Amino acid sequence: MIPMNFKGRDIISIRDFTREEVDYILDVAERMEPLAKTGCDLLKGKILALLFFEPSTRTYLSFDVAMKKLGGNTIGFSDPRTSSIAKGENLSDTIKTVESYCDAIVIRHPLEGAARLAAEIANVPVINAGSGAEEHPTQALLDLFTIKKEKGRIDGLNIAIMGDLKYARTAHSLAYALSLYNVKLYFVSPELLRMREAVLYDLSQMGVEYEEHTSIEEVIDKIDVLYVIRIQRERFPDPSEYEKVRGSYKITRKTLEKAKKGLIIMHPLPRVDEIGFEVDATPYAVYFKQPWYGVLVRMALLALVMGAIE
Amino acid sequence: MIPMNFKGRDIISIRDFTREEVDYILDVAERMEPLAKTGCDLLKGKILALLFFEPSTRTYLSFDVAMKKLGGNTIGFSDPRTSSIAKGENLSDTIKTVESYCDAIVIRHPLEGAARLAAEIANVPVINAGSGAEEHPTQALLDLFTIKKEKGRIDGLNIAIMGDLKYARTAHSLAYALSLYNVKLYFVSPELLRMREAVLYDLSQMGVEYEEHTSIEEVIDKIDVLYVIRIQRERFPDPSEYEKVRGSYKITRKTLEKAKKGLIIMHPLPRVDEIGFEVDATPYAVYFKQPWYGVLVRMALLALVMGAIE
Amino acid sequence: MIPMNFKGRDIISIRDFTREEVDYILDVAERMEPLAKTGCDLLKGKILALLFFEPSTRTYLSFDVAMKKLGGNTIGFSDPRTSSIAKGENLSDTIKTVESYCDAIVIRHPLEGAARLAAEIANVPVINAGSGAEEHPTQALLDLFTIKKEKGRIDGLNIAIMGDLKYARTAHSLAYALSLYNVKLYFVSPELLRMREAVLYDLSQMGVEYEEHTSIEEVIDKIDVLYVIRIQRERFPDPSEYEKVRGSYKITRKTLEKAKKGLIIMHPLPRVDEIGFEVDATPYAVYFKQPWYGVLVRMALLALVMGAIE
Repeated sequence: MIPMNFKGRDIISIRDFTREEVDYILDVAERMEPLAKTGCDLLKGKILALLFFEPSTRTYLSFDVAMKKLGGNTIGFSDPRTSSIAKGENLSDTIKTVESYCDAIVIRHPLEGAARLAAEIANVPVINAGSGAEEHPTQALLDLFTIKKEKGRIDGLNIAIMGDLKYARTAHSLAYALSLYNVKLYFVSPELLRMREAVLYDLSQMGVEYEEHTSIEEVIDKIDVLYVIRIQRERFPDPSEYEKVRGSYKITRKTLEKAKKGLIIMHPLPRVDEIGFEVDATPYAVYFKQPWYGVLVRMALLALVMGAIE
Repeated sequence: MIPMNFKGRDIISIRDFTREEVDYILDVAERMEPLAKTGCDLLKGKILALLFFEPSTRTYLSFDVAMKKLGGNTIGFSDPRTSSIAKGENLSDTIKTVESYCDAIVIRHPLEGAARLAAEIANVPVINAGSGAEEHPTQALLDLFTIKKEKGRIDGLNIAIMGDLKYARTAHSLAYALSLYNVKLYFVSPELLRMREAVLYDLSQMGVEYEEHTSIEEVIDKIDVLYVIRIQRERFPDPSEYEKVRGSYKITRKTLEKAKKGLIIMHPLPRVDEIGFEVDATPYAVYFKQPWYGVLVRMALLALVMGAIE
Repeated sequence: MIPMNFKGRDIISIRDFTREEVDYILDVAERMEPLAKTGCDLLKGKILALLFFEPSTRTYLSFDVAMKKLGGNTIGFSDPRTSSIAKGENLSDTIKTVESYCDAIVIRHPLEGAARLAAEIANVPVINAGSGAEEHPTQALLDLFTIKKEKGRIDGLNIAIMGDLKYARTAHSLAYALSLYNVKLYFVSPELLRMREAVLYDLSQMGVEYEEHTSIEEVIDKIDVLYVIRIQRERFPDPSEYEKVRGSYKITRKTLEKAKKGLIIMHPLPRVDEIGFEVDATPYAVYFKQPWYGVLVRMALLALVMGAIE
């Protein structure tokens, strides 16, 4: 593969990347595996700022580990409630200060567009670790990487995304990420939580084949990948509506009786009860491998944007 | 001393160890002293996860320092209130995620048995930094190490443990740890906070000689080690009961008038007012040396379970 | 310049330093610039404890970065609310514990004199990162360094300090720091927030020339440096008083129409609205360079007090 130069590049949306670029990132992630096992000095002397204006311990830890395994160091805060920097100062001033302290910034923010704004202001590369309801590009990349590692390829697969497709940023980022490949998508959700029209429109424009379903039973015998996303009770105006549907969106051994051989089940974690614990021991379950793949993908991104690797 | 292999071993309860093993850990702790002064690279490239589901800044800092002095790095959280990982996810899933990020886990948890459960799930070694009311094995090991360093030996000593012997996990772990040695124990406490029957029974079974007392004056001229534990007002159903006894469980210069030469006074810290400040300057006080010994013992454990040393 | 030995020295108040010493620190800060860009191993194996009993994310991050760029490591807490060490234990005991864990301590504390007390107790050097309303010496040093870097010198300059001169510790530390140089000071503030009498008295004693003003317009054409400090609404017993004055203490392009060529505008950050955003793009604005200078000054101090450099 021809080396690409990502030095100084921001990682804001999966939609900013071509298929070639995504393939290249996944290829670099692959090369990170031996380095992740032993640690290395690729980013020795470099500082990564982790600015989490919205708590997400899991994503925070993943970036923190990725940077440290590369020999670099991190600073920052994991919870805005304990950070005085998050109070009474506009984001722009915070970024102008923090960029003096670091070689790259990872930002998570409750507001749409915050990561994009940070990237425009900062002279160091900015990585979006989730902003608003739309984007979580590093999650999408680690999801692609998981599929590639576990299925050996992405092209040609039938992939179901099930759960809250309306509000979960994971669902949107992943749909866009998969649109770069030759896949068939099955969106499975309650009527109320259907994939956003805007996303469906974009997929059509890009010629991605997809179907919408309200029950996993309708597709379980067709799919190679089942991506499960949590459904939150709070999304339903009427709690009894939630109670009616919840059973249909829980994966159990029974759900899997008609599953294709080689099906993999993924989940962005944390799980509440969308996947029965009895599924963990089946060969379908790959969700607890995703955190490790996430470290590799984030190592790749950090090494690339700080110019330690091509 | 013959090298022992602790690689991959969990440190959950002091009761899981033989005397030979404990002696070996203390021996390795001794060897850590020069490394602690300069730092070293024994665990370079390794990651330790510190999962504190119950706050304990002191223990957190001690493990954090120990890992960093070994050249390794840490990730984690020191307060569950600021960690989203602690919410809405069962411990088992958290451990399955975090083990992807690290080479060993230190866990502190308010629930009995949580550390043991974590150890059963994790493929990396788990160290218990306090779980429920019963176990705090690394504190017990540092207490043994303190006695050995300050008195030159553990066997043959008369050791008093004074304070809340019913609820303080430090008291239980230490009693079990000392039961591996040939010592005489004096348990000094208010009637209400006597050492648990279960512990006394175990000590009898192991042939450990002990006496129970309600006043330190009864034993002060006999003991070589006085281990002071805090008594919390909240333990007394009637506050006036507390007021009645509190004076008797405060160590002052007066208490020490009949002390044996060479007595050492220990405390797990933080102290509130169990030991008068005027005692700090006496040769008896060794409690402010314990934090340093704690770093050495934790360095030894980390280096051992991650296989960096034998 | 003749090397000076700062090993083991505490940094509590800017008033503890001679002009020669301050010049020496600024000189070492200058030498830190190339090391800050690449990182270095000057403090490899060393541990810095950051004890922030009062939150200040910005100052915390600055010290954290400075230590890590020197190859050292940090432990500590950034918020007393999440630290159990801050509860129920006197500061003296906390320091006696923490000094076992580290090679130097940075402390921030809401109480006057806390840093001085910590320094008296600790056997490792202590750096004051703000204590009570009076002292913030590392901020004063970075302010001096900024002036020297941006104006080429400090002697001979006309320097205005504007804003809350009564309560802002930055104002006091900076006034004392500047008193070591041959400068003329202009204190600009509402009547209610005039520079404290004690400070003015000290300046007179030291022969520092100063004037007091209530409007920046009166001095804008005379000054080389304008140091802007926030005015907090809470300082005014009557909110309408605040509304009356606030406009006069906001720097806009209009304020700067009569500014001297080469004027620099500084601010300790975070800014609220004391400086209009349209000023950021003018050549006057140097406030976003201050965080970087702060890292260099703190690197210098850490390397000096831990004896890694002379």
